[in-house]
This record gives sequence, structure tokens and C-alpha cells, in this order.
Amino acid sequence: MKDVVGSPGTKTGLMLRIGQCGFAAASIAFMVCAAGFASYTAFCYLIASMGLQVLWSFGLACLDVYALKIKRDLQSPVLVSLFVVGDWVTATLSLAAACSSAGIVVLYSNDLSLCRSEHLPCSKYQLSVTFAFITWFLIALSSYLMLWILASV
Amino acid sequence: MKDVVGSPGTKTGLMLRIGQCGFAAASIAFMVCAAGFASYTAFCYLIASMGLQVLWSFGLACLDVYALKIKRDLQSPVLVSLFVVGDWVTATLSLAAACSSAGIVVLYSNDLSLCRSEHLPCSKYQLSVTFAFITWFLIALSSYLMLWILASV
Repeated sequence: MKDVVGSPGTKTGLMLRIGQCGFAAASIAFMVCAAGFASYTAFCYLIASMGLQVLWSFGLACLDVYALKIKRDLQSPVLVSLFVVGDWVTATLSLAAACSSAGIVVLYSNDLSLCRSEHLPCSKYQLSVTFAFITWFLIALSSYLMLWILASV
Repeated sequence: MKDVVGSPGTKTGLMLRIGQCGFAAASIAFMVCAAGFASYTAFCYLIASMGLQVLWSFGLACLDVYALKIKRDLQSPVLVSLFVVGDWVTATLSLAAACSSAGIVVLYSNDLSLCRSEHLPCSKYQLSVTFAFITWFLIALSSYLMLWILASV
């Protein structure tokens, strides 16, 4: 089972967690830098959801480092079940946050064309949402891998 | 296996599909009745996504009726795999559509408080989004059931 790419306690698994953590942090950073984000509920929710993602992925990355150091197998059914539930919950929340923010960004940039006239920091909003979607893609990848591992544990 | 609530080819499975179909159709109906929906990309995407959901759930409901009529077992691994993939894809699209529309509805009703001043049909938008979320909940339920059945087939 150690050979499955991205499984917990492996180098690829650690890289996947670091990637999730990094993109979620980048999404938060771009949103926080954009002026006036706090007036939008969806953007605040994006920050909260990406914050939760950073905490979850960072925690699992630390666990991966620990497992790699002491060469311990993390693939017990109880642990993998916990990873599956956590990954699915954070994946759903990340998708919901990314989509609700994307709805507003598309409304401002395409439907109402307010980005030029109102001097809104649309490029920062867009970058933040893009990073949130990349985070969702990576966490969805983890979720499927965990489910696969759980089925074969 | 026939005893699993909501599995394909059973009465509860048929009810679940009819529910998905009905709520998705209600979501489309409320959105189409709301004036000016066509100027919002997210609302158009909601209609497209709910339309796909209606087609998918209606197709599977017909299959359930057929299976109930001739008393045929629909739980072959190939068929269930097809249901799993279709359910997961439509569930993801439904959640994305519901969240992007919800982002705009919350923006208008809470953040900008435009619903009263601009005479927008906000209550219709809200009802449409609520039905989209109920549809997503039902299709997510189906997805997990199908995955469960696939694991035990």
C-alpha cells in the first residue's frame, strides 16, 4: 500500500499537503491584500474556508513528516477513515467558497463590467479565486486517494 | 443488496430520483420567472446545471420504473460504476451552480441591500437557490449510496 502515490506518510502525500496549504495561503493573502474584501460575505467565507484548509493540510503535513521520520505506517483503517471524512468536508467547503466568490467576480468583471469604472481590485479577487480552485482540485485529489486507500485497507 | 434504501431499481431509489428531478425543475422554474436573470452568468449556469440534473435524474427514474416493472436487478458493477460517475459529476456541478448563485443573492440581499431599492425579484432568486441546494443534498445522498453499493457489489 505504501506505493500508492499521495497516500499518507509518503513523500508524494507530503507534497500534496504542502501544495494544498500553499495555494490556500496564497488565496487568503491575495484576498486580504484586495481593498474592500470585508464588505462581501462570500469573500469573508472564502478566507474562513481557506483558513480551515490551511490548518487541516498543515496538520496532516506535520503528521506526514513525523511518519516519514520515524518510518511509521499511517494506513490504519481508523486513521484513514478520519482523513477521508476531513478531506471530504474541507473539499466541499472549499468548492462552495471558491464558487460563491467566483460568482461575484464574474458578476463584477463580465456581467456588470464594474472592474474598470469602479477601480475595484478585480485582478486580486480573480487570483484569489483561482488559487482557491487549485486548492479544491488538490484536496479533491486527496479525498479520492483516501477513499481508494480506505477501500483497499 | 435490494434492501439498501435508495439503491437503483427500488421504490425508495425511484422516490429519490423523482425528488431530485422535481426540486431541480422547481429551481429552474423560479429562476426563469425572475425578471432579468439572463444578465447574470451565474444564474444562467444554475439553469444549465439544473437542466442537466433534471435530464440525468429523469433518465434514472425511468430506468428505475422499468426495473421495478420487469423486476430486474440493476446492481451490476458496470451499471453502478456508471451511476457513481454520473452522480458525482452532476453533484459537483449542482453544488458549484448553487454556490455561485448564492454568492450573488447574498451580495444583493445582505451586502449591498439592493433588493428593496432596485426592485429586484430577490425572493424568486432565493427560492431558486434554495431548491438548487436541496437538489444538491439529494444528489449527494445518491452519490454516497451508489459508492456504498459499488463497494459492496
